[in-house]
Amino acid sequence: MTIVNPSILPGFLELLPEDQKKFDKLRAIIEENFKKYGFVNLDTALIEKEEILLSKGGGETSKQIYRIAKESTAQALRFDLTVSLARFVAMHAHELNFPFRRYQIGKVYRGERNQKGRYREFYQCDIDIIGNDKLSLLNDAEIPSVIYNIFKDMGFEELSFHINNRKLINGFLYSLGVADIESCLRTIDKLAKIGKENTCAELISQGLEGSQVDKIFEFLQEASNEALIERAESLYCDNESFIQGLRELKALYVNMQKFGVDKKNIKIDFSITRGLDYYTGSVFETFLNGYEAIGSVCSGGRYEDLASNFSKQKFPGIGLSIGLTRLYYQFSQAGILDELLGEGERQVLVLPFSEADMDYAIEIVNELRKNNITSQLYSEDGKMKKKFAYADKLNVAYSLIVGENERLDRSVAVKNMSTGLQENVKIDRLIDYILEG
Amino acid sequence: MTIVNPSILPGFLELLPEDQKKFDKLRAIIEENFKKYGFVNLDTALIEKEEILLSKGGGETSKQIYRIAKESTAQALRFDLTVSLARFVAMHAHELNFPFRRYQIGKVYRGERNQKGRYREFYQCDIDIIGNDKLSLLNDAEIPSVIYNIFKDMGFEELSFHINNRKLINGFLYSLGVADIESCLRTIDKLAKIGKENTCAELISQGLEGSQVDKIFEFLQEASNEALIERAESLYCDNESFIQGLRELKALYVNMQKFGVDKKNIKIDFSITRGLDYYTGSVFETFLNGYEAIGSVCSGGRYEDLASNFSKQKFPGIGLSIGLTRLYYQFSQAGILDELLGEGERQVLVLPFSEADMDYAIEIVNELRKNNITSQLYSEDGKMKKKFAYADKLNVAYSLIVGENERLDRSVAVKNMSTGLQENVKIDRLIDYILEG
Repeated sequence: MTIVNPSILPGFLELLPEDQKKFDKLRAIIEENFKKYGFVNLDTALIEKEEILLSKGGGETSKQIYRIAKESTAQALRFDLTVSLARFVAMHAHELNFPFRRYQIGKVYRGERNQKGRYREFYQCDIDIIGNDKLSLLNDAEIPSVIYNIFKDMGFEELSFHINNRKLINGFLYSLGVADIESCLRTIDKLAKIGKENTCAELISQGLEGSQVDKIFEFLQEASNEALIERAESLYCDNESFIQGLRELKALYVNMQKFGVDKKNIKIDFSITRGLDYYTGSVFETFLNGYEAIGSVCSGGRYEDLASNFSKQKFPGIGLSIGLTRLYYQFSQAGILDELLGEGERQVLVLPFSEADMDYAIEIVNELRKNNITSQLYSEDGKMKKKFAYADKLNVAYSLIVGENERLDRSVAVKNMSTGLQENVKIDRLIDYILEG
Repeated sequence: MTIVNPSILPGFLELLPEDQKKFDKLRAIIEENFKKYGFVNLDTALIEKEEILLSKGGGETSKQIYRIAKESTAQALRFDLTVSLARFVAMHAHELNFPFRRYQIGKVYRGERNQKGRYREFYQCDIDIIGNDKLSLLNDAEIPSVIYNIFKDMGFEELSFHINNRKLINGFLYSLGVADIESCLRTIDKLAKIGKENTCAELISQGLEGSQVDKIFEFLQEASNEALIERAESLYCDNESFIQGLRELKALYVNMQKFGVDKKNIKIDFSITRGLDYYTGSVFETFLNGYEAIGSVCSGGRYEDLASNFSKQKFPGIGLSIGLTRLYYQFSQAGILDELLGEGERQVLVLPFSEADMDYAIEIVNELRKNNITSQLYSEDGKMKKKFAYADKLNVAYSLIVGENERLDRSVAVKNMSTGLQENVKIDRLIDYILEG
């Protein structure tokens, strides 16, 4: 038989069991919090019609999507979870209960240039709250509190929400006389990344005058939340969008605190604009204190109309996205996965000494499982040394050794694999012994 | 803006929230049992190199796969989870701990002809135990007990495992002088589906003589387990494969009982052959008593060598697969989803009477979540009637109504949405009240 070299495509992350357990723990923390906040699971198809995926127009996306060569209908793999959500909401509007709170955790595909830490297949974890025609502003403030709890559960003491409002910054730039606001916003969004000098040069190259650029930097300059609000108010800007944006930002700041986010974790930051033209109101980025180098771990914002490409009905919403695969990679690079997650669930392994002890060993493993204890029987032949090596590699909590003595007096030699201590336990006490740790 | 008609490709199942909850419950039962038995999650890439997917040779598979039109490397979506497992084991053999017990629950893709109840995107739920060079026969008997517990947890009282052994049936046909054993097996496997007459005709058309066909049917004929074993033994067949197969089948029958499967749930059935040439020993199919029309809900078997296409090392294994999407569809068609799963997890909805009650309502929802109670705040404007309609549609367990009276005496009007009864509960008793149901 010809042997095909077993290999995987570049840009795809595949984990060995012990690492997968950590990945799954991060995922579980995210999913539990999504559920606790009343979001329901939506599991859309991975393949969409190309006309759906590219309904906003092609551009970079068109180059990155994975096209399927099948049948006459042009189709491709989803590149995010939002397009499918929009398509789903437009299709099922009359069957949904608005505000519709959905979460989705799923793989998406982008054929980006291959580079370290960038994956072509990666998990996105999204929540969105979708209104029918309108949606209370209070929802904007609730979304960060979900994030807050997720990262607390992962073990981070403090995080910083950088918040801003697109209406405010749009209005500000408009009243400054900036012509191409979109490009200007995209540049401003990079400030923290590329520095003031480069940002400045880029703005000038977009045709802004020096005095405009000065005013922009003056406005963006970091300060306390109160000082920033005062700075915005003291402009006495009469642009409608600016006024509404400022009102919304102030409400967001106050309401986030009501939902349990401490004041010290909120940072108004006029330079956060979330480049995409998609967002129209509140926007935010999340940084982990002490791990700022990781960059923003979660971002999101308010949009005016989710499904404008698919429906004439208006569906405003607020959403966020966590790039789980990238997050896992970054935590792993920072060496903090173990520290954060501690020991994963560890199982119990039953090791019969010889063939003669097998029936008794099966009886024990049956009993463990009946009591919902994750457990496994080592049923291969071999020396005890080999059996212990298996237990070690499996990183089990307990090895239950069953030999002739144990079988005859209906007991088990329980070896605590962390301490190395071994104790003889009667079978009728075994479950309690294990459960009590 | 041009409106693109929101639609989904045919052959893709997408569920609304209430149905998705049921689907997720089935999935959770499967996953919990996989874990309890010590299987660990493996999450392979959805896209594989085409040479990996088609390493066994093309045929029907080559026509059905979803090819990706990207870059020079031919690639496509996985059509099952086994090929990726084989590739993974061959790639990481030196890093794995054998026997390697992995589970995977994931979507697979087959561009089959579109028909009712057949999906092009569907979930497979697989477990496999892979040995390095050898693997104890006891594992064959453990696999059905996982299934047994899964369907018990889903609410099925009784199921029937139809078990057989490929070595036995191969040896039997060989000693009968059947030339093309593979084709003959595939035909026999259809017996229950197409009936004796059609099976007979197909065998004759394959060149078998009438006397051979008679002997085959005589052998296959249903009887009690004990009678079937006696029938096989009384053949005094001296074919090596037959002898070993019979020995293995008898051991499987006895060992399944040790792992907790009741004798009455096991049915030796010589006609179960699992058409694929992949299987080399124990094979089984699972039927739900009272729902035989659904067909086999889970099947699996023993194979000699998982990764023969990818490695010269030998990896024998035993595995099973549940087609979850199809199972969900069948349960839903049979109208038994609700009966099986009962009420899903239901949440709590906090309904503030007016804007003035909002802060108090936020305080309450914060408290509920702090106590891990799935809950949500209705923060939209509107009449109470609209708010109750939302609660009804969301199928919540409790609506917590918060108006001026409640706010002033720090209580909540708790409406049990099943009984319609409403009770005033002080805020410091609220969590206990909800948790106690």
